[in-house]
Amino acid sequence: MNRCGILILALFLGLSISNFGAVQAQESSLFGFGPEEARQQRMLEARFDASLKRENMKEWMKRMTQRPHHLGSAYGKENAEFIASQLRSWGFDTTIEAFQVLFPTPKIRVLEMTKPEKFIARLVEPELKEDATSVRTVEQLPTYNAYSVDGDVTGELVYVNYGVPRDYERLAEKDIDVKGKIVIARYGESWRGIKPKVAAEHGAVGCIIYSDPHEDGYFQGDVYPRGPWRSQDGAQRGSVADISLYSGDPLTPLIGATRDAKRLPVKEAPSLAKIPVLPISYADALPILRNLGGPMAPEEWRGALPISYHLGPGPATVHLKLEFDWKLVTAYDVIARLGGTERPEQWIIRGNHHDAWVFGASDPVSGMVALLEEARVVGELSKNGFKPRRTIIYAAWDGEEPGLLGSTEWVETHAEVLDRNAVAYINSDANDRGFLGVGGSHSLERFINEIAREVRDPERKVTVSERARAVKLVKGDPEERKSVRERSDLEIEALGSGSDYTPFLQHLGIASLNLGFGGEGGGGSYHSIYDSLDHYTKFGDASFDYGVALAQTAGRATLRLANAPVLPFEFTRFSRVVEKYLREIIKLVDDMREETTQKNELINDKILEVAADPKQTFVVPKVESAVPHLNFAPLQNTLDRLKQSAQNHEAGMKALFVASPGMQIEAQKSLDEILMKTERALTKSEGLPRRSWFRHQVYAPGAYTGYGVKTFPGVREAIELRNWKEANDEMEILAKTLDRFADEIDRATKILMSGTAK
Amino acid sequence: MNRCGILILALFLGLSISNFGAVQAQESSLFGFGPEEARQQRMLEARFDASLKRENMKEWMKRMTQRPHHLGSAYGKENAEFIASQLRSWGFDTTIEAFQVLFPTPKIRVLEMTKPEKFIARLVEPELKEDATSVRTVEQLPTYNAYSVDGDVTGELVYVNYGVPRDYERLAEKDIDVKGKIVIARYGESWRGIKPKVAAEHGAVGCIIYSDPHEDGYFQGDVYPRGPWRSQDGAQRGSVADISLYSGDPLTPLIGATRDAKRLPVKEAPSLAKIPVLPISYADALPILRNLGGPMAPEEWRGALPISYHLGPGPATVHLKLEFDWKLVTAYDVIARLGGTERPEQWIIRGNHHDAWVFGASDPVSGMVALLEEARVVGELSKNGFKPRRTIIYAAWDGEEPGLLGSTEWVETHAEVLDRNAVAYINSDANDRGFLGVGGSHSLERFINEIAREVRDPERKVTVSERARAVKLVKGDPEERKSVRERSDLEIEALGSGSDYTPFLQHLGIASLNLGFGGEGGGGSYHSIYDSLDHYTKFGDASFDYGVALAQTAGRATLRLANAPVLPFEFTRFSRVVEKYLREIIKLVDDMREETTQKNELINDKILEVAADPKQTFVVPKVESAVPHLNFAPLQNTLDRLKQSAQNHEAGMKALFVASPGMQIEAQKSLDEILMKTERALTKSEGLPRRSWFRHQVYAPGAYTGYGVKTFPGVREAIELRNWKEANDEMEILAKTLDRFADEIDRATKILMSGTAK
Repeated sequence: MNRCGILILALFLGLSISNFGAVQAQESSLFGFGPEEARQQRMLEARFDASLKRENMKEWMKRMTQRPHHLGSAYGKENAEFIASQLRSWGFDTTIEAFQVLFPTPKIRVLEMTKPEKFIARLVEPELKEDATSVRTVEQLPTYNAYSVDGDVTGELVYVNYGVPRDYERLAEKDIDVKGKIVIARYGESWRGIKPKVAAEHGAVGCIIYSDPHEDGYFQGDVYPRGPWRSQDGAQRGSVADISLYSGDPLTPLIGATRDAKRLPVKEAPSLAKIPVLPISYADALPILRNLGGPMAPEEWRGALPISYHLGPGPATVHLKLEFDWKLVTAYDVIARLGGTERPEQWIIRGNHHDAWVFGASDPVSGMVALLEEARVVGELSKNGFKPRRTIIYAAWDGEEPGLLGSTEWVETHAEVLDRNAVAYINSDANDRGFLGVGGSHSLERFINEIAREVRDPERKVTVSERARAVKLVKGDPEERKSVRERSDLEIEALGSGSDYTPFLQHLGIASLNLGFGGEGGGGSYHSIYDSLDHYTKFGDASFDYGVALAQTAGRATLRLANAPVLPFEFTRFSRVVEKYLREIIKLVDDMREETTQKNELINDKILEVAADPKQTFVVPKVESAVPHLNFAPLQNTLDRLKQSAQNHEAGMKALFVASPGMQIEAQKSLDEILMKTERALTKSEGLPRRSWFRHQVYAPGAYTGYGVKTFPGVREAIELRNWKEANDEMEILAKTLDRFADEIDRATKILMSGTAK
Repeated sequence: MNRCGILILALFLGLSISNFGAVQAQESSLFGFGPEEARQQRMLEARFDASLKRENMKEWMKRMTQRPHHLGSAYGKENAEFIASQLRSWGFDTTIEAFQVLFPTPKIRVLEMTKPEKFIARLVEPELKEDATSVRTVEQLPTYNAYSVDGDVTGELVYVNYGVPRDYERLAEKDIDVKGKIVIARYGESWRGIKPKVAAEHGAVGCIIYSDPHEDGYFQGDVYPRGPWRSQDGAQRGSVADISLYSGDPLTPLIGATRDAKRLPVKEAPSLAKIPVLPISYADALPILRNLGGPMAPEEWRGALPISYHLGPGPATVHLKLEFDWKLVTAYDVIARLGGTERPEQWIIRGNHHDAWVFGASDPVSGMVALLEEARVVGELSKNGFKPRRTIIYAAWDGEEPGLLGSTEWVETHAEVLDRNAVAYINSDANDRGFLGVGGSHSLERFINEIAREVRDPERKVTVSERARAVKLVKGDPEERKSVRERSDLEIEALGSGSDYTPFLQHLGIASLNLGFGGEGGGGSYHSIYDSLDHYTKFGDASFDYGVALAQTAGRATLRLANAPVLPFEFTRFSRVVEKYLREIIKLVDDMREETTQKNELINDKILEVAADPKQTFVVPKVESAVPHLNFAPLQNTLDRLKQSAQNHEAGMKALFVASPGMQIEAQKSLDEILMKTERALTKSEGLPRRSWFRHQVYAPGAYTGYGVKTFPGVREAIELRNWKEANDEMEILAKTLDRFADEIDRATKILMSGTAK
């Protein structure tokens, strides 16, 4: 999973609730349910809660983290089989679905400094007596970045900060060019795959990524094993495939990586990194960074190593040699089904990945065991008479770490039936002590709020919604605090990428939720061999209290979606975020216009030049063309219409369940058919410009952020790229998309009203 | 000098000019001068500029920095005699005035960690082969804080960040009390003397201050001798007398420390630190800080040492033993006079200190040699026929470093005659490559702007005003940039403390200016043995180009004040800052009210508690009483009146020099008498609450900032202390003070109008 994601979800989401301080009484009504069905559902959930056992989670974690279980490993397969056997024993119709995917692993990894001193990077995470599994070195994947290309390059080094585009603008001002050089970037700010992508775009021949102790080491807290944080030899494995292009197997974009799928030659796979990339520890980075000359790095670029951070180029010169075994391996997805009685062709899918980089106690096992315990109890309930109205599918994905391979290939393979049958996808991943984080489709915002107002925080004895709001009010920035105060409910975050919801939501347009707790556990084991049982049970959710909280939250979401007479989709919240995103886009353009004007003035009036220190190299940037005024009218008109449609639908739902409860099952089914596909209406089959795999027009990972979301991605990225024509075009496309979405809402409302009339 | 001051002055002042890009033509008119006098003045200044020689500055710096020349040292006396002999040779009527002042120097300095490991701090700045004078160790003052008390204390250590009041609030939230403990604070944020003051107020028994590499070491840049920044063994000497109470000799507040002055017993001197204090290097701090346990320090408290910053208390336990020789020494002020012809009883005083902590090439010699070269040329001009209308006094102060001793004792000794005769005081101190910084009385804002628009920056060939504005536009925060854009001139900064203007401005109410260049040289030698000729000529203003620029700026200020037919005081700028300060005060109260309400809500609604991690100690703060509405009306009414008075005066000046130039000398004299004392009208003989020595009601150093200014100090500090009655009382006092000031302006205007009528 996306590590930043964990923290962001936990700490910074726009969560809010209506009444703080007073714990709310259990609500009697449930959105999408009539009074009697709500009563029954609550009884079911009480039984569900009572059956959850934290000891199971602990035992399964212990079992699953004994050996390395990355994609293609023996133990990964064993874990899949173990999960399948468990699910089967609980009464699920369970299969293991296999895919053949490209998964390079290192044959040669060499990083050495050749000038001005000799230094050979160790590239090893040492064994620790305090960490039992760390000594099991035989099956461990070494520290590396999956989908780096092979390479043997030597060059002067340049420090590029986080390695995002604006960092290269700063370098250009100092007349530093990375062409033919090797760059060293620190982890953070962007997803790691963006760093070699941008470096290659600027002509670099190699890329080193290191964990600076400022973000990921002693600056944050005591290092392992004394504390949870990354020690000097820890390094962060991870994929560098261009996930903003498409996720899944690099050789089979858009299609399932089945045994006989038509594959791209490796050399033509567009999502592979373009240059060799290697992640290193800060102990390996220190001697190299210390030997950089040239200007000082800007203040905000400097990390926590005890050196003066310079930019280079050189004198530090490094030799980077990487060679991989470019093999196909088998990914094992576990798919377990509990058929719905009344509407079996409507699927609620609930997933978590099971593969790790090494032992993966936190990522992903902490989330996986919560899902398993949830499934166990659902199975138990089912054996005791519970029959879900809709079909429930539990999934354990393989190959998430290298790039969401298991989930993506499954989604691509079953795209047609999923398009027809999927109601929603509920994801989880690493889970820890702390605060509820929710990301997802805003048509499910009201739905998940109802749940967050009922699940109790195990530490503070308030609801998880109240706790999430409290942390936001205390630790949020002024704007975030303001937004919490102004709302009476939780605002859920838009999803970028970094876990298995991506193919569901952004490729197929299946409404999705991503759920997890975190923010109080210590980071630092992420993608290292020290993400172990010892680490998790010392510094993580040792009691599995938050494992239970996750099972309660995701379990309720699954059960309610499966049982609701009418699917609990709601659109006024969605129209509210559309309004917000539109406001952001308008402000973005206005701010760019103002900044461009001011910057051009500083250039034209020679103020930049006059202010600069003549003893330091400074290249005055070029004047930029003025930012034009764009045509927001189509979007503004659509927004007005969307708001009205959403209100009408809300009124219809109210009428249905409050004024005149009850509706014929056939009408309910037709209504469901429409509601479950509203999210599909937000997609466009041609996808986004330059990345057709991403079809959702409202949520996408950024082309230059990787995991970080770009809402209204077509419009927003065109603006950011200063492509004004494309921005205007995308604005019209988006307006039409949102219009179609409103059409679907209106269709649903029509049925609601006729159902109500009945 | 105040080191932060240099940077602030250079980088962050609100400087602005009218037309950027186009270098302005030399203006033909001069404020306070008629057309013919202006022409003559400009001819004089052209001769002045042409005679300035940078070689003199270099030679004098070389001479003055050969041996340590702190207060009471043999070479300090030699320097004073050298300066006096030079000034005498240039034709000034020169005396050396001596004062007997308390100046403790160390007999014993011991700092050791006793638990959990043994460690003895070295407390030595090592010799460097690259730094010629560093090897002259015999006369060097060791690293220490002057006016620490004697003490022999042992205690657990607590890290208190910068050691300002709000840092102790954070500690209290974590249930950490420093009572009976020894605190370690890093340099920065506040003046150093505030750190032991606040520590003692909270019951600490000792205080260590160290230079963290984040503010003052490798994080900033390459360390000496490779670069200019502080190396691991460098430590910052400095005074810890409570300068916010009074400056000067601790034993003789309010009176001159003449041989037979009535002195306080040392034990009763109120400005001494209350607990033992010692400054240390980061090499000495590292082993100690590494041994702190307890909670992690808040993120913004962490520095650049390669450790996890913990708060303690302990287990690190330290023993601090300090013993001083509490002797009286002689301070030697050099006072050189060039009598005025027409108005000899009106004095323009221009000063810089000559004492250093050790070799002091930058602080103070870089400023001192610029003053000397300025004086040399004035003397030369005088030998060639130039006769100033008013008396010019050049002063070289001793004992500035321990607490502005030389200047303060001179001012206190001559208070009566200065009150009668002083027109203005112009100060400088350390000077370096970079940007003009100006602080001072806003009645001189228009005057100094005229000069800054004429002196040329030696690097960029624009005026120093344009350059200062450019750096502000490029590096300022959005608000600063906005303010530069909105103004057509330079806004000069209000003065706090940290150099010799304090007794003139804040004790006696003599209009003052503080001038200096800086911002491009490298810091890090401040108050160490490495503030040497080698350091300055490698990393500072090696060419002395900015020494010349300072001489041109301060020289013009001196000569114009000495020669102007009517003193160039102006009050519309002053009324503008009064308006600004009033706006700030109103906003301060409103913000405090809002923050108090919000914080109380978070406490009462238990949100702080709910958001906190139960595994970490957290003490919920107490609810604070609500912030009442204060009576701003008296100040608002006075402001309206002041604006009108200032406009009338401006109209009068315009009429005098534009409509009907010329005025009888006797009328000019009467006008001068009023104008030169307008600043006196801003004082109140009882002084500020709890610190009667500080009489100025508009500018004062903050009681808890030390050097940092508090404008409207009586009102502002009462508000900050939440003493609402005092705030309302001080508001009335301030209003009356400003009313008297306006009365004086009106008196001046009356003469102007009658003079104009003539």
